[in-house]
Amino acid sequence: MKDLRIGIIGVGTMGADHAERVARKISGARLVAVSDPDTDRAAAVAAPLGDVRVIGDPLALIGAPDVDAVIIASPGFAHAEQLAACLEHGKPTLCEKPLTMDTESSLRVVEAEHKLGRPLIQVGFMRRFDPEYAALKRLLDSGELGRPLLLHNVHRNKTSAPHFRSEMIVRDSLVHEVDVTRWLFGEEITRVTVHAPKPTGLVADGVLDPQFAVFELANGALADVEVFVNFQVGYEVRCEAVGERGSATIGLGVDVLTRSAGHWGGAVPEDYRTRFATAYDVEVQRWADAAARGGIDGPTAWDGYAAAAVCTAGLESLAEGRPVAVELARRDEVLG
Amino acid sequence: MKDLRIGIIGVGTMGADHAERVARKISGARLVAVSDPDTDRAAAVAAPLGDVRVIGDPLALIGAPDVDAVIIASPGFAHAEQLAACLEHGKPTLCEKPLTMDTESSLRVVEAEHKLGRPLIQVGFMRRFDPEYAALKRLLDSGELGRPLLLHNVHRNKTSAPHFRSEMIVRDSLVHEVDVTRWLFGEEITRVTVHAPKPTGLVADGVLDPQFAVFELANGALADVEVFVNFQVGYEVRCEAVGERGSATIGLGVDVLTRSAGHWGGAVPEDYRTRFATAYDVEVQRWADAAARGGIDGPTAWDGYAAAAVCTAGLESLAEGRPVAVELARRDEVLG
Amino acid sequence: MKDLRIGIIGVGTMGADHAERVARKISGARLVAVSDPDTDRAAAVAAPLGDVRVIGDPLALIGAPDVDAVIIASPGFAHAEQLAACLEHGKPTLCEKPLTMDTESSLRVVEAEHKLGRPLIQVGFMRRFDPEYAALKRLLDSGELGRPLLLHNVHRNKTSAPHFRSEMIVRDSLVHEVDVTRWLFGEEITRVTVHAPKPTGLVADGVLDPQFAVFELANGALADVEVFVNFQVGYEVRCEAVGERGSATIGLGVDVLTRSAGHWGGAVPEDYRTRFATAYDVEVQRWADAAARGGIDGPTAWDGYAAAAVCTAGLESLAEGRPVAVELARRDEVLG
Amino acid sequence: MKDLRIGIIGVGTMGADHAERVARKISGARLVAVSDPDTDRAAAVAAPLGDVRVIGDPLALIGAPDVDAVIIASPGFAHAEQLAACLEHGKPTLCEKPLTMDTESSLRVVEAEHKLGRPLIQVGFMRRFDPEYAALKRLLDSGELGRPLLLHNVHRNKTSAPHFRSEMIVRDSLVHEVDVTRWLFGEEITRVTVHAPKPTGLVADGVLDPQFAVFELANGALADVEVFVNFQVGYEVRCEAVGERGSATIGLGVDVLTRSAGHWGGAVPEDYRTRFATAYDVEVQRWADAAARGGIDGPTAWDGYAAAAVCTAGLESLAEGRPVAVELARRDEVLG
Repeated sequence: MKDLRIGIIGVGTMGADHAERVARKISGARLVAVSDPDTDRAAAVAAPLGDVRVIGDPLALIGAPDVDAVIIASPGFAHAEQLAACLEHGKPTLCEKPLTMDTESSLRVVEAEHKLGRPLIQVGFMRRFDPEYAALKRLLDSGELGRPLLLHNVHRNKTSAPHFRSEMIVRDSLVHEVDVTRWLFGEEITRVTVHAPKPTGLVADGVLDPQFAVFELANGALADVEVFVNFQVGYEVRCEAVGERGSATIGLGVDVLTRSAGHWGGAVPEDYRTRFATAYDVEVQRWADAAARGGIDGPTAWDGYAAAAVCTAGLESLAEGRPVAVELARRDEVLG
Repeated sequence: MKDLRIGIIGVGTMGADHAERVARKISGARLVAVSDPDTDRAAAVAAPLGDVRVIGDPLALIGAPDVDAVIIASPGFAHAEQLAACLEHGKPTLCEKPLTMDTESSLRVVEAEHKLGRPLIQVGFMRRFDPEYAALKRLLDSGELGRPLLLHNVHRNKTSAPHFRSEMIVRDSLVHEVDVTRWLFGEEITRVTVHAPKPTGLVADGVLDPQFAVFELANGALADVEVFVNFQVGYEVRCEAVGERGSATIGLGVDVLTRSAGHWGGAVPEDYRTRFATAYDVEVQRWADAAARGGIDGPTAWDGYAAAAVCTAGLESLAEGRPVAVELARRDEVLG
Repeated sequence: MKDLRIGIIGVGTMGADHAERVARKISGARLVAVSDPDTDRAAAVAAPLGDVRVIGDPLALIGAPDVDAVIIASPGFAHAEQLAACLEHGKPTLCEKPLTMDTESSLRVVEAEHKLGRPLIQVGFMRRFDPEYAALKRLLDSGELGRPLLLHNVHRNKTSAPHFRSEMIVRDSLVHEVDVTRWLFGEEITRVTVHAPKPTGLVADGVLDPQFAVFELANGALADVEVFVNFQVGYEVRCEAVGERGSATIGLGVDVLTRSAGHWGGAVPEDYRTRFATAYDVEVQRWADAAARGGIDGPTAWDGYAAAAVCTAGLESLAEGRPVAVELARRDEVLG
Repeated sequence: MKDLRIGIIGVGTMGADHAERVARKISGARLVAVSDPDTDRAAAVAAPLGDVRVIGDPLALIGAPDVDAVIIASPGFAHAEQLAACLEHGKPTLCEKPLTMDTESSLRVVEAEHKLGRPLIQVGFMRRFDPEYAALKRLLDSGELGRPLLLHNVHRNKTSAPHFRSEMIVRDSLVHEVDVTRWLFGEEITRVTVHAPKPTGLVADGVLDPQFAVFELANGALADVEVFVNFQVGYEVRCEAVGERGSATIGLGVDVLTRSAGHWGGAVPEDYRTRFATAYDVEVQRWADAAARGGIDGPTAWDGYAAAAVCTAGLESLAEGRPVAVELARRDEVLG
């Protein structure tokens, strides 16, 4: 079997990370091209990775005959056009979240893909590939805890970038728990409330951090999420599912437990790359394996669309301080 | 120093437990009288505890010259009258929650006590005496975690009694987190939302269990509470405080950690008596010591009143499915 | 029932602690007299505790008609004579470890008590009253883990006193695990090896710290103990029992779990007073209750004797670097 | 860079696992040949893995010009001859433990490799590649805990195979802790005591399980190991290092923490494949990368020899019930 030839669009932190992953870590695939408006950076990323071309125009990369599949790691505003090109060329695509910048354009991606008759687009909700989340999903599906009733999520980063704005908590952070909630419970979110308590004093004026969201699901279950992107301590992602007969928690994290200087405990990881390193590797390996067969193996375009719809409602709730209903097209009407 | 002579009103589960505690466990105090409408039960409780009188009329017990201090463990509807009598006779009183059945009558107790010019009534919020909650309070007050921002609470019972109704979750269970939140953060609760997700299938039709409450505090901080009184697993009370520079959790509970039959872990306590045994002992010992000096050493009548006000708002939120503001008298107007 | 009138011999750290415990914490007993060569210190300890006499001569305290029961907290070399006096006067006695300074004199105490025909002497192995050790004992006795095979112990102190010598690790620290092992497994120790690895650099030259002991039991089970009295971190006591069908560990200790500054975890207690506060309270309460009925409720003189025999063998092993058999009289020959 | 072409000798459980790993999981390498006396099994293993030859004679596989590097997963008795052939052909080799069956033949391997002037043989002590062990090693090397003093190891399997004999505990299980101890502390083991307490009743008569070993190191540090291969519960590997200023533990393992049916806790893995899956992947990836450059990146032939010497002494201690000195050639005399 020939290696799958992959091109990557966007070589910022995430794209560069994927470039190294494809070139050095996963099997059955190799990196053949990268594209970025900053061609110097693209060349610098490509250089140590062997025989990798730099292509200025992302649409040219998508169309290149020696590119079998595409990873989109460009800024969100560029996704709609690039995804359309990928669909047009029939190239399997792993698209980092968000699918697109708003609910409507996301729905159009879903519809365009649906017309092709087979899934080509996988969205980069990589938590589904984290061993702990995957174990939690299996446990819930086993029925051992009874019917799922509640989901408590905690999502904390050490600090945010200087240009950070309140909306990004919803779009870039909360969006992970949107997908986790939909996936773990197998239900759409129908109503969202985002609370903005008095912010920590360690952010710029006007930034609402932490935030606390409550999701109501179609079947009546409830999920809540603390997002706190300036927690100072480190990166922490925790999730507790409560069912009729018990609960299960992941993200407690024991690695090395030390006792020193009057204290017992362990280290909190610096950021998501440490915590989710395996998840990214597994995600890309499984996607590459599926792409070589012409399909996907992970979150679909619909998942990306549904997440966009929930985040849009969340932004409205944050702005207006009240619960907001999620407006989602009927799945059977869109996908038949 | 002479022992404090204590009389107990009500010898149900809690009152009988206090009777044994006063008679056998705490120092500097002894039990001299009990009162209960069920005089046979009162006699049965008194018999093994030495020289303890049974007094039919609770008001007679309160007025008895050989009763220095009173523990009220009667049903909540009887509290208002009994508390008035305690105040009239100037007897230090430990009153199990609720202070009274509604916000207004609670406020009248606060006002009546205030006129006396010294605190006589302590409310039985015993979690303040639990070593773990006390350690969490010290940690928050130390400033080590920065300003408190969020409080996540979990309150689970194994099963509820057959006659259980949804309102009791707010009045009897959530009320503990009301006090814990006010006490830990040192702020009044100003707005309450109680969510009722689809109930567990393991309760009678019409019972809303679990419930999920969100408290907004006067200083903008936020607290949330899962109450689930038919959790099936056992009794679990957890609390995580999140500050600007870190978080702290109590209630994780390690006692004996076993490895057996493919599993590692420990036991979940059956009910509150196991989990909070020490808290009750410490509460009553400290109250008795304070009572011997004519004062209290714990939650005040105001704390009981404030809890009643929050629960009243919580019941309204539960019934109407929307956030409800808490109506609380101004403390300085009432207490000067 | 009249309060048990207790006299305490020796008011160093432990004796003064017991004085306050008897006077203020436990019920059914009161402190009437203290004795210490340092009469100024004895007077200072007695003063705030109410009506407590200072008696210069410990034997006079033991003989005093208003002293019903005695706590011996004097240095070990004084125990033999004081225990003989307690037996002579038929006074129930709680004797801090060691029972006496050597195996032979301990055996004479056992024999003298045996002649009286009823147990009067309880030895201060207070770990048997610690809730965690007690739970471990119940678990082992339940048979849930199958027959006990191995016991791993860890015993660490923050730092030792300046005058500390290697032998004290065996006599004062290891002796607790000697009793714990005998009690948990219900078997005598028959052979001891004490290893002295290269010492930590943080003690004076010539002090062998840490030490590592291996106990072989009469039924073939094995126990090991790390004792490290200059661990720098704090006080840590852990114990894992391994049976045919599983294991159980105590002493892991979760109280408040914090996340701060890149770290999760909790505090290690400073010393035994924090860790075992409850154990001491329970020990003295149960002993006082039993003493009021003329008996004991805890480790017997035989337990004190057996511990002395094991420590004597341990000291020989430490000095000679080889396993040493424990020489113990036959219980049935001594106690009939 | 061309892929490294790997041949595997022996396709039992471990060899078949490596075959799939090389063919499907690691990058920069591919599987070209397998050899096994059971050629049917070899063919069955090769079939789904693409273009993989079956070669009957292992020495022919080693000599094949299209085999760049060799993994030896044959029974231990075959290793000496196969390693000699690998050295003769200058093929980089990953050899599963044991290096050879006895100390002397292991030393001859070390000497033969040394004559070649470059390391070709890596021994399959894969724990060095486990993320937790690696983190513990980094922590010790950082000096944060001070000089290492003690190492406590626990090594438990659910059950052993029917044909299991006592000696295999030392050769196949304890050997891992031999390497872990030498590697973590960077010192040779000079004396070994293996204790055999009364065995669990759940093994055949005559099998000594559990065993408890004490290692004395050249620098005076001490290590102990519980090996219990019929623990019934599952697979558990734990390690606590104690230094002058603190301790660190790995293997506590939290993945999904559940609360159900009166119990909190998690699952104990069934066997080493679950616990050490990542370690094996990392080991083989790093070895293949190094082999492509003509070297190794892991435990050396000397490490395999030293482990054999310690195990030989351990077997003697087990048989004779006394401490046994480890006889090891001087490293500088052998390796110059």
